[in-house]
Amino acid sequence: MTRIALLGTGLIGRFYAQSLHGRRSRDRIHVVYSRSWDRAAAFAEEFGIPHDTSDWRAAISNPDIDAVVIGLPNHLHREVVLAIAAAGKAILCTKPLGINATEALQMLQAVEEAGVYHAYLEDLVYTPKTLKALKSVQAGAIGDVLWVRSREAHSGPHSDWFWNKDLSGGGAIIDLGCHCIEIARNFIGKQIRPVEVMCWADTQMHPVDVEDHAIGMVRYESGAIGQFETSWIFRGGMDLRDEVGGSEGTIWLNHWLRTGMEMFSSSTQSGYIAEKAETDTGWLFPVGNEGAALGYDDMFADVLGQMESGGRPQEDFYDGYVVNAIIDAAYQSVKTRQWAPVEL
Amino acid sequence: MTRIALLGTGLIGRFYAQSLHGRRSRDRIHVVYSRSWDRAAAFAEEFGIPHDTSDWRAAISNPDIDAVVIGLPNHLHREVVLAIAAAGKAILCTKPLGINATEALQMLQAVEEAGVYHAYLEDLVYTPKTLKALKSVQAGAIGDVLWVRSREAHSGPHSDWFWNKDLSGGGAIIDLGCHCIEIARNFIGKQIRPVEVMCWADTQMHPVDVEDHAIGMVRYESGAIGQFETSWIFRGGMDLRDEVGGSEGTIWLNHWLRTGMEMFSSSTQSGYIAEKAETDTGWLFPVGNEGAALGYDDMFADVLGQMESGGRPQEDFYDGYVVNAIIDAAYQSVKTRQWAPVEL
Amino acid sequence: MTRIALLGTGLIGRFYAQSLHGRRSRDRIHVVYSRSWDRAAAFAEEFGIPHDTSDWRAAISNPDIDAVVIGLPNHLHREVVLAIAAAGKAILCTKPLGINATEALQMLQAVEEAGVYHAYLEDLVYTPKTLKALKSVQAGAIGDVLWVRSREAHSGPHSDWFWNKDLSGGGAIIDLGCHCIEIARNFIGKQIRPVEVMCWADTQMHPVDVEDHAIGMVRYESGAIGQFETSWIFRGGMDLRDEVGGSEGTIWLNHWLRTGMEMFSSSTQSGYIAEKAETDTGWLFPVGNEGAALGYDDMFADVLGQMESGGRPQEDFYDGYVVNAIIDAAYQSVKTRQWAPVEL
Amino acid sequence: MTRIALLGTGLIGRFYAQSLHGRRSRDRIHVVYSRSWDRAAAFAEEFGIPHDTSDWRAAISNPDIDAVVIGLPNHLHREVVLAIAAAGKAILCTKPLGINATEALQMLQAVEEAGVYHAYLEDLVYTPKTLKALKSVQAGAIGDVLWVRSREAHSGPHSDWFWNKDLSGGGAIIDLGCHCIEIARNFIGKQIRPVEVMCWADTQMHPVDVEDHAIGMVRYESGAIGQFETSWIFRGGMDLRDEVGGSEGTIWLNHWLRTGMEMFSSSTQSGYIAEKAETDTGWLFPVGNEGAALGYDDMFADVLGQMESGGRPQEDFYDGYVVNAIIDAAYQSVKTRQWAPVEL
Ligand SMILES: NC(=O)c1ccc[n+]([C@@H]2O[C@H](COP(=O)([O-])OP(=O)(O)OC[C@H]3O[C@@H](n4cnc5c(N)ncnc54)[C@H](O)[C@@H]3O)[C@@H](O)[C@H]2O)c1
Ligand SMILES: NC(=O)c1ccc[n+]([C@@H]2O[C@H](COP(=O)([O-])OP(=O)(O)OC[C@H]3O[C@@H](n4cnc5c(N)ncnc54)[C@H](O)[C@@H]3O)[C@@H](O)[C@H]2O)c1
Ligand SMILES: NC(=O)c1ccc[n+]([C@@H]2O[C@H](COP(=O)([O-])OP(=O)(O)OC[C@H]3O[C@@H](n4cnc5c(N)ncnc54)[C@H](O)[C@@H]3O)[C@@H](O)[C@H]2O)c1
Ligand SMILES: NC(=O)c1ccc[n+]([C@@H]2O[C@H](COP(=O)([O-])OP(=O)(O)OC[C@H]3O[C@@H](n4cnc5c(N)ncnc54)[C@H](O)[C@@H]3O)[C@@H](O)[C@H]2O)c1
Repeated sequence: MTRIALLGTGLIGRFYAQSLHGRRSRDRIHVVYSRSWDRAAAFAEEFGIPHDTSDWRAAISNPDIDAVVIGLPNHLHREVVLAIAAAGKAILCTKPLGINATEALQMLQAVEEAGVYHAYLEDLVYTPKTLKALKSVQAGAIGDVLWVRSREAHSGPHSDWFWNKDLSGGGAIIDLGCHCIEIARNFIGKQIRPVEVMCWADTQMHPVDVEDHAIGMVRYESGAIGQFETSWIFRGGMDLRDEVGGSEGTIWLNHWLRTGMEMFSSSTQSGYIAEKAETDTGWLFPVGNEGAALGYDDMFADVLGQMESGGRPQEDFYDGYVVNAIIDAAYQSVKTRQWAPVEL
Repeated sequence: MTRIALLGTGLIGRFYAQSLHGRRSRDRIHVVYSRSWDRAAAFAEEFGIPHDTSDWRAAISNPDIDAVVIGLPNHLHREVVLAIAAAGKAILCTKPLGINATEALQMLQAVEEAGVYHAYLEDLVYTPKTLKALKSVQAGAIGDVLWVRSREAHSGPHSDWFWNKDLSGGGAIIDLGCHCIEIARNFIGKQIRPVEVMCWADTQMHPVDVEDHAIGMVRYESGAIGQFETSWIFRGGMDLRDEVGGSEGTIWLNHWLRTGMEMFSSSTQSGYIAEKAETDTGWLFPVGNEGAALGYDDMFADVLGQMESGGRPQEDFYDGYVVNAIIDAAYQSVKTRQWAPVEL
Repeated sequence: MTRIALLGTGLIGRFYAQSLHGRRSRDRIHVVYSRSWDRAAAFAEEFGIPHDTSDWRAAISNPDIDAVVIGLPNHLHREVVLAIAAAGKAILCTKPLGINATEALQMLQAVEEAGVYHAYLEDLVYTPKTLKALKSVQAGAIGDVLWVRSREAHSGPHSDWFWNKDLSGGGAIIDLGCHCIEIARNFIGKQIRPVEVMCWADTQMHPVDVEDHAIGMVRYESGAIGQFETSWIFRGGMDLRDEVGGSEGTIWLNHWLRTGMEMFSSSTQSGYIAEKAETDTGWLFPVGNEGAALGYDDMFADVLGQMESGGRPQEDFYDGYVVNAIIDAAYQSVKTRQWAPVEL
Repeated sequence: MTRIALLGTGLIGRFYAQSLHGRRSRDRIHVVYSRSWDRAAAFAEEFGIPHDTSDWRAAISNPDIDAVVIGLPNHLHREVVLAIAAAGKAILCTKPLGINATEALQMLQAVEEAGVYHAYLEDLVYTPKTLKALKSVQAGAIGDVLWVRSREAHSGPHSDWFWNKDLSGGGAIIDLGCHCIEIARNFIGKQIRPVEVMCWADTQMHPVDVEDHAIGMVRYESGAIGQFETSWIFRGGMDLRDEVGGSEGTIWLNHWLRTGMEMFSSSTQSGYIAEKAETDTGWLFPVGNEGAALGYDDMFADVLGQMESGGRPQEDFYDGYVVNAIIDAAYQSVKTRQWAPVEL
């Protein structure tokens, strides 16, 4: 059993708590932090968490905890990580690691110096389909990987801070691109260097400063291309698909809208359908188990399992740092309108 | 933590062990039984099980165990259940409960008299999609349920005993129909009485005595129809689909061949694809996490959770008995070529 | 060029006119009949038809026409066919041929005695997918055909006469079953005799006397089963699917709701989606070319082509008669609750 | 009836002949040209064409013909078009119009000066799904079009000349990109100017000089992006999909591999599956009517219909010229590694 401090009670805090208490049903969140004490208390009540606080420093220094799970807005990740490293606790940080590669590198150095366990909570490389597909690719089922298209798109985030560059670091690229980039990198192979990025981005629909739509290509040393399509302007729910093209085969993964569960409802009782669903009558595409389908369950199984056994999780801060570096290059490319080098 | 004796190391024994040791990762199989001591030992080694035996009576009377999971051929279920009830242990029995309703009723009476916890391991009502769909139906998303079609079909079982009526109780109807019947019954509503069955069955392809293909209709008191399609002659893998028709909506579930994971492989390295897959080159339809997709994970979470908390699992021996009674009526209908009453 | 008299300006009259004037764009409807002269005139105007009438006897005796296409309600087919045969014109009759096999046999004898060309307009065996699938089956792609499931379901017909047994001959079985039965018969092989039928039918939802839902099985001499599922209670549009199971393969055809065209619309401008579509916002499944998808185009190409070249169409009155005989057996089975023999 | 001279008896010549003689079944190919007289004669025999020749100048100056259909390799289009324009015949030219925009402009000017009817045979904007989708978009079903992804990919062309830049003008971009670019342009709106292109291209798999894989983005004046994905390295058949993203909706079109027709065959008799299919056992995805699915039928109905009625086809040489200009910019961008302006 691992005893956890959870920081943040927003969308991801909720998903994490469900998965942590659900899947292995032996790890426990020991203390939960929220800015507002009310929300911390309500969350603690809902998930059966013994302690709650509105002081994150108190949470991370609680002597009974083994690990801290970070589910706070992007601009807080660095400060919090440095403090937890100093406190000598294991750190499980949500995506993106930093606001940019400079921050991410600092965080990586901090955990390495402190010698604490660190995991980068990139859940989408842990979906059951992705894990199985990675195994097939590694076994040679599709030959050499030449191209990956990873797409994440919905109609826009649920909280204001996402739209504020100072708090988020950017728009759809940093918010959704971090997933797509790392999915492609897993398929292409982590040992292969990402070389340069070409990216288009625009604000096509929402009254915001950050980009709400972006398409980019990451060129790897092997010649493979990792294509990311990230958008906050997609209508119809959440589009979460990957395509992998190899010299001897193809893999198509659909994680969300077309996975074998379809419902037509003319009633007004159809209830909760799925994250980011836009409608609740007519043809609907519910998701059976969201936490599993999004990879949370297998992610925590790996991350906590490796922590217990002294191993390394599939994704750690080094991976988060690489992702941030690729994102930095993407933003540069949007500005220069040319291929931008990935600086690692 | 629950300590378990597992009886049987065949296909289902393996699935159960993976799920028991995987999903919650806190329950442990304490002793495993197989007819052949060699196989018991190998299985124990593979799954890290401390004890193995070729004497099932020894296994169930081990004082350290809380529950027995039965994964033996159909004709052994009754004898074993009666012995475990006498030993006062919790019993988790695979499907079908008995070879016929007479057996099943005896087993039900035995566990009730002994006052032991009993669960009927009908995994397919626990697939994440089914659980979510049941919730939607209960919330009124599709109005009154009028029709359910549940289909399970593949090219035939892997062990000889399935083809021997004395050991199995019958062919595709008892082997696969038990799933389809109970899925329909869950959607239609367990409080509604199944009244009569009309069934066609034939041996169309395999050189066996039992039926390798059957289609039946169960009429419920509400007028709803539960249609089951079971076949050992289906080519292309495993076809596992449910359709639910209501007065205000429709639900389509596909659990296996078309669930958003598609692979084309021209290589000979595609590896393991999925249970009952017939091919490993060309277009393939792997399954991300079979144990989850087939409901094993959520089934054991419910069954062990209810056992711990003193509740009732979604499926217990009473449900298994009802299923056996419907199957008996199906076989009778095949013979009489008329609708046959369900005797409960 | 063929000159045609079209009888009927309802749903099917419209589909036929679009296909006749569209596909080959060389055949012309020369005269159109509708009970109401107004409707005949409006239809003639819309489709550029030179003559219109409210007297069907006048239409069929027009000396300039080569063929009569019948698109009238079921109870009128016989009277009209007998008159056209007497007038010595080619007859293209919509489905079902008669209200029952007795009528159909009379019609068959009439055209044979008169020596006129006769085609049974069973469009669904002419969908491009079905034609291609039939070719594959005949080439041996799936071995021996053992089972066909053909399903046609929607939420109910558009005209009152369908619900009146005297005018229609019955409910969903005769209206939709005629398609499903003949599709299965084409796959199983027309040279193989249908032996007997088992059928369930009920009026589950609509306030009518005829059945609004029926499921049946036709057993052929070869042992193959043709399963038909016909329903006026299906919610979500029109469900038009066939599954063919052979000893060496499987074919799945989806003709309507999942054919590669998907649209999400939050606007109120989505326009016409497809026949029997229930919704026009949210996720929608339009059909590109309905006339082609439903088989009308290839049907008329065959029927008019064979007429020109002196051949036989894929479906003629003999086929319509067999279908009526199977339907009669289905209705008998519903009454006797037993398998009913097909009397040919 | 239109009397046609067909130049070329390769893959496209065959598709064109099938559609011209099939769909309307009233137009006739009057003379067919092939370099080799043998092949011309065999083709004429097969399709019932009265005249054949190995001299294309003879074919186009045949006094009985109304129109010439060009199905020759790319480098011959210009010379042939100029000659036909001089001969005063209507010209229907396959894609791409020219090897580059300079050629295309010359061809456009030639037909305009000669005053002859000209059509650009871009079939994929005429698929039934695309026509219906265009209608929906024009009606406002998905609001403002912001993004189109059009993808055409297979494992490589069937004739050597495609791989030779002098004869083809380039690789996957000019061969497949012409389709994708014009599909996007139709959805975004032909009245909106394409401004600039960013494109990546590489030779990833085949031992050729031209690119076998390319991904590009065309930015339109409205801010919309037309994304094209063209590849000769795709494994599994032919991938032909379009996605259209609008401010109020989404459209997904799948034209080939997942259109509702699925076959599993363990036999060796599965026969012809579909253009570019790689396998003929296991799971297969046949196409019902290829000529219709690829748009040939509706294309010729429009092109010949407009010619007869004095109208303009959906696509004429001006469109072909725009496509060539966008392709030129794509090739420039590949070289400069920057956005390249579209010069019109
Ligand atoms: N892995 C994933 O798939 C995934 C999904 C969603 C979000 N996330 C990440 O999780 C983090 C949180 O996102 P979210 O969707 O939960 O956001 P949210 O807005 O739903 O919740 C944010 C939480 O942080 C708290 N918070 C906000 N500003 C704060 C401040 N200045 N000081 C202290 N606390 C503050 C809020 O009260 C809330 O509890 C982000 O880094 C996001 O990128 C990851
Ligand atoms: N829930 C499901 O989805 C599911 C799936 C498969 C099997 N099952 C059920 O599980 C049971 C076992 O099926 P299986 O597929 O694992 O079969 P199997 O043939 O793969 O394995 C059977 C096991 O029982 C043992 N056994 C066989 N005969 C025996 C005997 N006479 N005495 C003692 N042991 C004997 C075998 O050695 C083996 O360990 C059956 O009741 C079957 O219906 C359920
Ligand atoms: N092949 C198919 O897929 C298909 C589809 C729909 C209908 N049909 C068949 O077509 C026929 C007509 O069906 P529909 O859907 O067009 O019906 P409809 O109600 O839309 O049209 C019926 C037509 O017949 C006329 N009519 C009705 N009663 C009449 C009477 N007593 N005397 C003279 N004319 C009368 C109506 O005015 C109308 O023109 C039926 O036999 C039906 O089974 C076939
Ligand atoms: N619209 C479409 O979807 C589509 C599809 C395929 C091809 N095409 C186009 O059609 C044209 C032909 O392509 P294809 O696939 O039919 O090629 P192909 O190689 O199959 O056939 C080419 C034809 O041109 C003839 N030919 C080749 N070189 C010649 C020369 N030097 N002089 C005279 N004749 C010559 C060949 O004998 C053959 O008849 C190309 O422009 C191609 O881009 C269009």
